[in-house]
Amino acid sequence: MIMIDFRPILNICGLLMVIMAVAMIFPALADIASNNPDFNVFITTAALTAFIGGALYLATRTDVPTELSRRQAFALTTGAWLSVSLVGALPFVFYGGSMSWADAIFESVSGITTTGATVISGLEAQPPGILLWRHVLQWIGGVGVILMAIIMLPFLGVGGMQLFETENSERSGRIVPRARQFVVYISAIYSALTIVCMAVYMVLGMGAFDALCHAMSTIATGGFSTHDASFGYFESAPLQWAGTFFMVAGGIPFVAYIRFVRGRGDALFGDVQIRAFLIFLAVVSILLGLWLSTTMHANSIEEGLRMAAFNVVSIVTTTGFATSDYSMWGTTSAGLFFALLFVGGCTGSTSGGIKIYRHQILWTAVRSYVRQLTSPHRVDVLSYGDLHVTREVQASVLAFLAVFVGAFSVTAVLLAAMGLDLVTAISASATAFSNVGPGIGDIIGPSGNFGPLVDEAKWVLSGAMLLGRLELFTVLVLLDPDYWRG
Amino acid sequence: MIMIDFRPILNICGLLMVIMAVAMIFPALADIASNNPDFNVFITTAALTAFIGGALYLATRTDVPTELSRRQAFALTTGAWLSVSLVGALPFVFYGGSMSWADAIFESVSGITTTGATVISGLEAQPPGILLWRHVLQWIGGVGVILMAIIMLPFLGVGGMQLFETENSERSGRIVPRARQFVVYISAIYSALTIVCMAVYMVLGMGAFDALCHAMSTIATGGFSTHDASFGYFESAPLQWAGTFFMVAGGIPFVAYIRFVRGRGDALFGDVQIRAFLIFLAVVSILLGLWLSTTMHANSIEEGLRMAAFNVVSIVTTTGFATSDYSMWGTTSAGLFFALLFVGGCTGSTSGGIKIYRHQILWTAVRSYVRQLTSPHRVDVLSYGDLHVTREVQASVLAFLAVFVGAFSVTAVLLAAMGLDLVTAISASATAFSNVGPGIGDIIGPSGNFGPLVDEAKWVLSGAMLLGRLELFTVLVLLDPDYWRG
Repeated sequence: MIMIDFRPILNICGLLMVIMAVAMIFPALADIASNNPDFNVFITTAALTAFIGGALYLATRTDVPTELSRRQAFALTTGAWLSVSLVGALPFVFYGGSMSWADAIFESVSGITTTGATVISGLEAQPPGILLWRHVLQWIGGVGVILMAIIMLPFLGVGGMQLFETENSERSGRIVPRARQFVVYISAIYSALTIVCMAVYMVLGMGAFDALCHAMSTIATGGFSTHDASFGYFESAPLQWAGTFFMVAGGIPFVAYIRFVRGRGDALFGDVQIRAFLIFLAVVSILLGLWLSTTMHANSIEEGLRMAAFNVVSIVTTTGFATSDYSMWGTTSAGLFFALLFVGGCTGSTSGGIKIYRHQILWTAVRSYVRQLTSPHRVDVLSYGDLHVTREVQASVLAFLAVFVGAFSVTAVLLAAMGLDLVTAISASATAFSNVGPGIGDIIGPSGNFGPLVDEAKWVLSGAMLLGRLELFTVLVLLDPDYWRG
Repeated sequence: MIMIDFRPILNICGLLMVIMAVAMIFPALADIASNNPDFNVFITTAALTAFIGGALYLATRTDVPTELSRRQAFALTTGAWLSVSLVGALPFVFYGGSMSWADAIFESVSGITTTGATVISGLEAQPPGILLWRHVLQWIGGVGVILMAIIMLPFLGVGGMQLFETENSERSGRIVPRARQFVVYISAIYSALTIVCMAVYMVLGMGAFDALCHAMSTIATGGFSTHDASFGYFESAPLQWAGTFFMVAGGIPFVAYIRFVRGRGDALFGDVQIRAFLIFLAVVSILLGLWLSTTMHANSIEEGLRMAAFNVVSIVTTTGFATSDYSMWGTTSAGLFFALLFVGGCTGSTSGGIKIYRHQILWTAVRSYVRQLTSPHRVDVLSYGDLHVTREVQASVLAFLAVFVGAFSVTAVLLAAMGLDLVTAISASATAFSNVGPGIGDIIGPSGNFGPLVDEAKWVLSGAMLLGRLELFTVLVLLDPDYWRG
């Protein structure tokens, strides 16, 4: 017997669709400004989306409770991302480029999950509306994932996120008032960062439209670009360093920004996760940069460091911009960049992937386990910064990693069965679950795109991107028969 | 301050070296019988090994306690495999083929860990002594790993093996008397299976020498062959079915055989692990076999099923024999066989890899975690067959899986940095840690060998094979500073 009241879920999904309809006005304006007839597409899809969303919202408006149960929260989280992905695909289906549903859904999911993998080649020839829409999707997805990570996931206890519950809740109790407060703070910081990023990009030479688009996909660590050559199109050292800086900014927990703004000076560099994240990026970039400088791949130490830092940061923050095809830097680099797909940024940021804190907790848990092998009666109390790592958190993190690896492997085999070569299949699976963007190899590497893949592979990868973005368990719970029982 | 008494460890290592010296007499006899001058090599290395081993044994003979501490047991397990690998390499270094130390150690480690990866091409041209020595190494390694898994690992609590402690101990208390009893039982069953396998191979048409060699590497799930074409050399359907049967026999927990012989009829098919192992093999083989039959890869359903069963069983039991190059069956098959590297046989058998029971416990733990996401106050008691899966066992299994994946990934990146292409690097790492043998691709695939790799890669892979065989933590514990403290 189903005992879950789905009305509040449908109600919020309806509201989100209306927001999406409003967002579609911006690409329409971009098309109108450049006299492109495609503005009609956005007007039509906006109207359609607003109608469906509005109807859903109104039909379920009665009797909305102010608190959600855990079961409702799971369904809401998955439902919200699904419905937004679905309406996000509408402009791609109906515009002049006439994409298939498989392509349109892939592009929309890749946008809203801030993955940044694309099926479109010849971006320069696309109408400005469609280009802007891809960046708007990433921008909305970026703020969406921060809010989900701060408000929903600790409450749901997914993937060890309950570790951050007391920390993020800041002593406030209920989910709804806390949520409202966070929405305001996070949106303000997120918008401010985007505006600053856009301004810096313009000062350093980008045109206004490119600067807006790239600022949105930088802070969202999304990775969509208005050019086939991605960020490499702008052959400017200062721009690439600025991009590196703002991708890092997008990969930092936004709660730390709130604390920092409130006057806690150590909120940024005093945080265990942020420190490890920055040190890791610095060490890998410097080593790779020096290696690139000493080989034929870079002409100067500055160029080597810049190429290394930009591309390493791009993959680790799961942005997916590229300045050059690092697959062509030899097997060392291919292996390194493949491994970087499994790192991820900080939790509570726009980054996806496994994330730094899970690696840290895994390390702590394994250390403690190894110690107990020699001294079985030893009792270790694990801590993470000031936080106590309970058995539940450990189990959550380990279960997350196990399911991540399992889902990644099964998907890789599925993709291989669809005819993708092994490197493409494996790296496509990894890049989708980690929400990075490019894979390894000629087809889906930084200088290729996902267009040539068969439709089945695009559907599978769309699912993988959503699963990855929702930290797997948010969706998997819904497949558990117990969820639907009383 | 080091407080570990290493004398009993060195004492047992010395004894094992003497056993290895005795084992070297058999290849010497094989060379003498075929008038090959290389018999001298085995006489010399046997004398050298016996001298070192004997000296070690005698020098540390005083005051041997009858019980080992945990710390001693860890050092003993690692030390035993290291010293046996080392002396096992001597014949390869000194015989006419003049192998480098990197090659010799690789071949010896691959033998003793029952991996079956080889650096030798042109096996048919090798002297019989060297060929037999490779199979003797696998045969000794096979019985060694069974005894280690039954006697040492549950006691040490490595990788969740403590689950089987009470089960295997059969209510006897101390480790030494239990060990003696198991050594006798297991050796008897192991030898009997080998003799039966050899007899069947001979009846089905193999020559006596080939039958002996292949029986030893079949029951040990080792995978060395006397022919470059591996088991595919014998183009005989009955032989391939027999090989399939005896590889499965080697992948079953040997404790189950003891119980079965003692009259417990349900010991084999009533066991949760064995049942899952057999069902998995049957399902995958039948599906792949039907696929091979409907495509151009097999001429009849029987041939399709046979090719599928033999090669699937060979990889899952971590034997590594091949009848054909399954990498050439298209991307579907490459993906499938890559994934099969991560399955493994049953614990307490000669198989390596992650193993069936760990997948089962992982599944149980993840199921329970997903259930708790919807009902946080629910308390699940996990069971595995009749056994209770404690939190410690769960943590052990999850830590094992995490470290397995971590070690596998780091090694793959290292190998890529040494110039191996991505598919070779990744599959070499997986096949080494899982003790399977062949990888994927032209170089190390079923029709290639590890000879062309650079020496650095061979050293890294030798380490990976040993780490995999010792279930990772047995070695990692020794790297923990706490191990060496009081």
